[in-house]
Amino acid sequence: MTLPSSKIALLQFRISPNISENMAKAIQMIRSAAAKGADIICLPELFRSVYFCQTESIHIFDWAEAIPGPSTEQLCAVAKELGVVIVASLFERRAAGLYHNTAAVIDADGSLIGTYRKMHIPDDPGYYEKFYFTPGDLGYKVFTTAFGRIGVLVCWDQWYPEAARLTAMMGADVIVYPTAIGWHPAEKEEFGQRQYEAWQTVQRGHAIANGVYIAAINRTGFEKSPDSDAGIEFWGKSFLSDPQGRILCDATHSEEEILIGEIDTRELETIRRNWPFLRDRRIDSYAPITQRYLDVK
Amino acid sequence: MTLPSSKIALLQFRISPNISENMAKAIQMIRSAAAKGADIICLPELFRSVYFCQTESIHIFDWAEAIPGPSTEQLCAVAKELGVVIVASLFERRAAGLYHNTAAVIDADGSLIGTYRKMHIPDDPGYYEKFYFTPGDLGYKVFTTAFGRIGVLVCWDQWYPEAARLTAMMGADVIVYPTAIGWHPAEKEEFGQRQYEAWQTVQRGHAIANGVYIAAINRTGFEKSPDSDAGIEFWGKSFLSDPQGRILCDATHSEEEILIGEIDTRELETIRRNWPFLRDRRIDSYAPITQRYLDVK
Repeated sequence: MTLPSSKIALLQFRISPNISENMAKAIQMIRSAAAKGADIICLPELFRSVYFCQTESIHIFDWAEAIPGPSTEQLCAVAKELGVVIVASLFERRAAGLYHNTAAVIDADGSLIGTYRKMHIPDDPGYYEKFYFTPGDLGYKVFTTAFGRIGVLVCWDQWYPEAARLTAMMGADVIVYPTAIGWHPAEKEEFGQRQYEAWQTVQRGHAIANGVYIAAINRTGFEKSPDSDAGIEFWGKSFLSDPQGRILCDATHSEEEILIGEIDTRELETIRRNWPFLRDRRIDSYAPITQRYLDVK
Repeated sequence: MTLPSSKIALLQFRISPNISENMAKAIQMIRSAAAKGADIICLPELFRSVYFCQTESIHIFDWAEAIPGPSTEQLCAVAKELGVVIVASLFERRAAGLYHNTAAVIDADGSLIGTYRKMHIPDDPGYYEKFYFTPGDLGYKVFTTAFGRIGVLVCWDQWYPEAARLTAMMGADVIVYPTAIGWHPAEKEEFGQRQYEAWQTVQRGHAIANGVYIAAINRTGFEKSPDSDAGIEFWGKSFLSDPQGRILCDATHSEEEILIGEIDTRELETIRRNWPFLRDRRIDSYAPITQRYLDVK
């Protein structure tokens, strides 16, 4: 049995309000990452535009696009040219009045393998995603690519152990999380560090519990709210965790960076042999997890 | 609505091969913790004896006892005298040839409220628990005590997000994990730090994902294997995490300690309001979690 390894690149960057610039920047960074030897290249959540969910405006639905569509056409051509896998988070227009927060996975031959539609949709002040995105109906997904089995989840999914577990149970070597998370500047000083640490810790926990690599790709930079002087300072800190929860590489909070790390399925195999958590799951006891809450008196 | 807070004590200590000494030490430390204001007092896993699972010997079944039985009688009397809740991990004899790794929960009036039988049973070199313990058949449990709602899970359960989720869904304010985990001395230098950190991180992840306090109570000290010069160096480091995964207090690796921290349900309420993960669970999508694996081609 041959167990492969591959190089994964996490592209962390600032997003321009000039919507035409972001795809150009993404493609430029994809080329740089490929030149550095990356096999799998991952973009941040909704990288084509500023994080528009800071406000609720029906005009923004103009930014959505079909998948396959203009963005995947461009990215498929780049993937084929460079021989790389690309994970791209896009604003999907499925029908009039029906939109999703969707990740497209493109194989190294330029083919669009499939999509994952974000299952867990947040709604918090400044993150009004329930207005824009219908919760995904494709379930959890793993994509068998030229460079390994890639599971994809998106941002708010990060907080749900069920999503990571089900994706790992489908055979993912790595779970990729395109992300757009940041601080409200007014909260940063008091709560910023603990918010960031909780975000990283819960994902490292998924890596450990499931024996998988985890890649989180966040944007960086401040984006002003269209409604006020407030806004979101995206906290960057994209990272790659190994299957024991060790951070193999992580970015700064505020710089644009190309992080490159290794997905080594031999290491994954070794860790799971030493920590055989999958062996002992009590599947006879988990059925109530499909309930909303267990109202024990 | 009154939201209470309570003080929880984690008793970390070395275990004597002289089996009669351990209950005496436990009771002495319970008295000290109560004198320091503790309301809920938690003992390490199987505190009555050395960690006997380093070898497989049928003579060790002599150490098991009924619940209720001699240990719970002593501890119920102490709980009543001091007005404290006690969580005690015991080796339960249920019938001839049928044993469990069981936690007993005793309320502040001295009554035995109930038991939790360890659901996930490990089997690794030096941790031959599948020989001794039948997997639990009581499911997940939450106990409503004089000092709050306490969920109890035991050691290997720590690695299973499903167990923490189901216990939190039953309304636990805190999940208590009696533990016996340590290093094989031959592995410690190379792997010790990452093993310990993974153990702590996955539990902090449960705290974050579920918005609950987590208390892990480990033993400390070296216990020699009866079969060889090897043994286990229990790594101590008992800790209390808040519902954002922040370590409120933690012990050293090698000292006997009484850690005391606060379970504040007002803080738990605030954290869950700010991070409403329970709101957005996709319960329509979790059913496959009851399968062993999803054999995606």
